[in-house]
Amino acid sequence: MPHSPLDAAQLTADLIKCPSVTPEEGGALQLLEKVLDGAGFACTRVDRGGVSNLFARWGDKAAARSFGFNGHTDVVPVGDEAAWSVPPFGAVENGGVLYGRGATDMKSGVAAFVAAAVDFVAETPPEGALILAITGDEEGDAVDGTTALLDWMDANGERMSACLVGEPTCPERMGEMIKIGRRGSLVARITITGVQGHSAYPHRACNPLPAMARLMDRMASHTLDEGTEHFDPSTLAVVTIDTGNPATNVIPAECRATVNIRFNDAHDSASLTQWMQAEIDRVAEEFGVSGAMQVKVSGESFLTPPGPLSDLVAGAVKAETGVSPVLSTTGGTSDARFVKDHCPVVEFGLVGQTMHQVDERVEVAQIHQLKAIYARILRDYFA
Amino acid sequence: MPHSPLDAAQLTADLIKCPSVTPEEGGALQLLEKVLDGAGFACTRVDRGGVSNLFARWGDKAAARSFGFNGHTDVVPVGDEAAWSVPPFGAVENGGVLYGRGATDMKSGVAAFVAAAVDFVAETPPEGALILAITGDEEGDAVDGTTALLDWMDANGERMSACLVGEPTCPERMGEMIKIGRRGSLVARITITGVQGHSAYPHRACNPLPAMARLMDRMASHTLDEGTEHFDPSTLAVVTIDTGNPATNVIPAECRATVNIRFNDAHDSASLTQWMQAEIDRVAEEFGVSGAMQVKVSGESFLTPPGPLSDLVAGAVKAETGVSPVLSTTGGTSDARFVKDHCPVVEFGLVGQTMHQVDERVEVAQIHQLKAIYARILRDYFA
Ligand SMILES: [Zn+2]
Ligand SMILES: [Zn+2]
Repeated sequence: MPHSPLDAAQLTADLIKCPSVTPEEGGALQLLEKVLDGAGFACTRVDRGGVSNLFARWGDKAAARSFGFNGHTDVVPVGDEAAWSVPPFGAVENGGVLYGRGATDMKSGVAAFVAAAVDFVAETPPEGALILAITGDEEGDAVDGTTALLDWMDANGERMSACLVGEPTCPERMGEMIKIGRRGSLVARITITGVQGHSAYPHRACNPLPAMARLMDRMASHTLDEGTEHFDPSTLAVVTIDTGNPATNVIPAECRATVNIRFNDAHDSASLTQWMQAEIDRVAEEFGVSGAMQVKVSGESFLTPPGPLSDLVAGAVKAETGVSPVLSTTGGTSDARFVKDHCPVVEFGLVGQTMHQVDERVEVAQIHQLKAIYARILRDYFA
Repeated sequence: MPHSPLDAAQLTADLIKCPSVTPEEGGALQLLEKVLDGAGFACTRVDRGGVSNLFARWGDKAAARSFGFNGHTDVVPVGDEAAWSVPPFGAVENGGVLYGRGATDMKSGVAAFVAAAVDFVAETPPEGALILAITGDEEGDAVDGTTALLDWMDANGERMSACLVGEPTCPERMGEMIKIGRRGSLVARITITGVQGHSAYPHRACNPLPAMARLMDRMASHTLDEGTEHFDPSTLAVVTIDTGNPATNVIPAECRATVNIRFNDAHDSASLTQWMQAEIDRVAEEFGVSGAMQVKVSGESFLTPPGPLSDLVAGAVKAETGVSPVLSTTGGTSDARFVKDHCPVVEFGLVGQTMHQVDERVEVAQIHQLKAIYARILRDYFA
């Protein structure tokens, strides 16, 4: 009996109907496990910290070459449900457009690579292995998601030779952008402490606010870099400064600020932390205050330099869409920041304009096109 | 029947028992009105905006010379009542110390000048008039307190030739300080507005925080002056900077700061407002943000230059205490800032160390000493 192709749009709709708001599995991974198990993939549920993840491999664990896809089935909350024109988990299709939370980010991407992989191994079984690493914790803290899958793979001798993350990457037009890296991101919470007092007698107090003002002025006006070969300049945003002092005649003891740095490959979180600490020490010295800092690193920057993997993906995109994609490192963070320690990784997916929004939606034709691109990548990779 | 002297300490205790937390009259002004009425003072209640005040005059309204006392019977809240070792309105006396809210600030001062005035007019009726202008709104907004009394006096042809405000003025030792002026005070609330955005794309937003940081750094590090003949340098305290942005990936649209300036006679609120507006305009230009400011003036600075009135008070203090008082312009604001537009005014009262605190208290002997000083001032003034 010949293999009948898996409908990626139908699978997307079935996934949208699973209310998998992080950290709820919502039936999404169960559904995929059933599909992949039936297609000959060895499936393992890698659950950690209350989060569900799915590892699936077709082919030999010891294969010389294995191509991986990474994606997530969890979605962000629906937000103001009354503002939606359709039920957020209804998977309503209208005029060639499929609506629902996760329609772009990224149940369509997962459905496209699952369908491409299932068809590919059925029709032209490759010399090598296919690995699908699908997490239920990308939109949350992401500490028990792709990281848990990679930890489990390391512990069990599972390897990918290359990996494609199926997140939406195209700003406006299908095929226009591949991500070959991402800037790193960290959040620093800084507290400056002085000595409280009456504002009529400022010399008896030690006001932390002028020190904080100078520190934030210096940090915000510092040029971290001018950009690097593949990256835009790093940016620093002071996102909040707060004191909470209701009294106009009291000098407060403490002031807090939060800074978000998005940094390229000219830096890492350690060098930036060192720089910030030096600036804090400098104002502490100048103003006689004390400073404290807590740094939370969302991810270091990563880059998979242009080469075989990006050529492979770009070629498939061009062949299927006629568009020559740019290789970009823009945007926020993604789970590629974890995968990059495991193997070369790039990201390609559909247009992400409605992600996280009310009436999130995807063109059905784009899902089929994305599946075709992923299928071509597999054929070319194993050719 | 000879006049029997009025006990200022007993009157202080009776006033403490009136719970006159601003804006409550609490029976305090009623009590004083009864005492003064019985002593031949013409009393008028000048109530405005829900606040009670008492005007009392002995002698002829058209007298060539009239000496005035100003004070307040309202008190600040008791704060943490559990922290008090006595009932705040109990007027407990223990070991020569009288405890209670208002014991120093300033029921003792009011009792001392009322007792001195009552005895003086009974024993040595002067050529001239005595005026007592007692408010129930000094600790609050003070818009319907001494100002209401002065407005009423203007409207009714009542005049003081000179005035003494009986607030506590001595830092540690009875008699050591007379206030001949006070710095002015203003509060400026500044808002800097930019454009909200995602912290991964700061160039699409316009962050108000760096502009605010630079503005506050400049304002806090600016030297307003080096002091003047009778005044310490003006001071500027940044008392709060607030944003209230809970999201580390969002650049906020707005940031607010509050600045308190205590200024001497080198400035007035108009010149300072002009300077602050220029600084706001400068960062608005530099950062492409917009700025807004609201200024609330608590009082302009005032000075009664050393002369007959301060000589009179200093002489009486020296004669009764042996201490030569310094003429000072330090400290916060007082109602003298209103009286100065009416007539020469100085301030003298007892040691203010426990004012506004838990277990506020006064040495009973100091009340008697203060009454003796006020009595001597009256004798010398009308001599
Ligand atoms: Zn996503
Ligand atoms: Zn007072």
